[in-house]
Amino acid sequence: MAPLDLALRQELLALQDAYISTLDTDALEHWPDMFVEDCLYEIIPKENVDLGLTAPVIYCDGKKMLRDRVVSLRHANIFQPVVYRHFISGLSVQSVEGDEVAMQSSYLVINTSQLGQSVVYQTGRYHDRVVRTAKGWRFRSKRAIYDTSRIQTALAIPI
Amino acid sequence: MAPLDLALRQELLALQDAYISTLDTDALEHWPDMFVEDCLYEIIPKENVDLGLTAPVIYCDGKKMLRDRVVSLRHANIFQPVVYRHFISGLSVQSVEGDEVAMQSSYLVINTSQLGQSVVYQTGRYHDRVVRTAKGWRFRSKRAIYDTSRIQTALAIPI
Amino acid sequence: MAPLDLALRQELLALQDAYISTLDTDALEHWPDMFVEDCLYEIIPKENVDLGLTAPVIYCDGKKMLRDRVVSLRHANIFQPVVYRHFISGLSVQSVEGDEVAMQSSYLVINTSQLGQSVVYQTGRYHDRVVRTAKGWRFRSKRAIYDTSRIQTALAIPI
Repeated sequence: MAPLDLALRQELLALQDAYISTLDTDALEHWPDMFVEDCLYEIIPKENVDLGLTAPVIYCDGKKMLRDRVVSLRHANIFQPVVYRHFISGLSVQSVEGDEVAMQSSYLVINTSQLGQSVVYQTGRYHDRVVRTAKGWRFRSKRAIYDTSRIQTALAIPI
Repeated sequence: MAPLDLALRQELLALQDAYISTLDTDALEHWPDMFVEDCLYEIIPKENVDLGLTAPVIYCDGKKMLRDRVVSLRHANIFQPVVYRHFISGLSVQSVEGDEVAMQSSYLVINTSQLGQSVVYQTGRYHDRVVRTAKGWRFRSKRAIYDTSRIQTALAIPI
Repeated sequence: MAPLDLALRQELLALQDAYISTLDTDALEHWPDMFVEDCLYEIIPKENVDLGLTAPVIYCDGKKMLRDRVVSLRHANIFQPVVYRHFISGLSVQSVEGDEVAMQSSYLVINTSQLGQSVVYQTGRYHDRVVRTAKGWRFRSKRAIYDTSRIQTALAIPI
């Protein structure tokens, strides 16, 4: 890779770390701010993607929907103190066009239930489109394509 | 992030990799050397931290206690060849003041028992204060705040 | 670490990410291209390595054997759509001699079965020798030294 690419790679890795750090520290109110106003966020099973089907289990079109989602999460889940930890590896950049980058990375989410047991909650691959703005990198679209179909609880939290 | 911040980020990630690499290769005798002389190391349940309680299950005050801990580990665990693997993600920097940085990152420890089965041993978040010395970055304090309360074995090894 | 070392570290991390990304996106046909022609690839239990035994469960000597392996995998596993996700952490560089680097890193592989359950498939440590070529960094040798002896399925896929 050229030095310039390595610098870009650093910025993208920092963005991914900031994203999962926001989720893992339960700072959900800041989560929508990592997206541009006119964004797409979805969680979709790999099986559907492989078959060419577009049937996400979670679909948010625009930042307002992300904010609404956080509000409803705060009301719904107040009695379920489940802890999530995200791990990312295997970043690959598909395209760089001006200030917009398409990239993928594998993710792993471990959750710890109220009883204190930690298990693999979900694995999958992020398909992201990110754009450089005056405030830094933001997600234009984020698709969390998950492998795990036997998910233990409802897909309540953002991935 | 500014280029300078990305360079700092690289140094911090290299430190974290060196830390877990020391543990994962069972080079425990080198573990205390990653801390400054007047250091703090503790392992504490997230539940306690959330409640404002200061009741760590492991507490080491100063490098000498870390060294003592390694010596006792070498004597106690000689017949339990359990293998630990650490994975870190989601670095976030809270503050940079001169040569001292406060940072956090999520960690995952997988252990493999003598019978050869690998399971999630512990997840949590490191809360670190690190300082730049003539010999490189060292930990002034490391708090491993763990999510998993159903820990399979005694908290024998450093996290 | 010196700035030069951090730049090298970036290149090595990018190589590791490209490697696991190739595996995780099922682009196995590109996997042999990440090695030099005269390469060594093996998967070997940690127990054997610790005892000084050289008895790998998988041994490929030269790029042609890697290509043969992919061909046989494509024929053998066509009805088993198991998904693998690799995670890497704890990179450490053992030596840098001209254009050749010896390095290690811990790996975690999670697999998701056809039934949709995700479990820890294998952990271990890569012992790699990589060389800088006109086309970028390539593996001269890769040894995947695994901890997990109770592996659920045959060691069919590359690690």
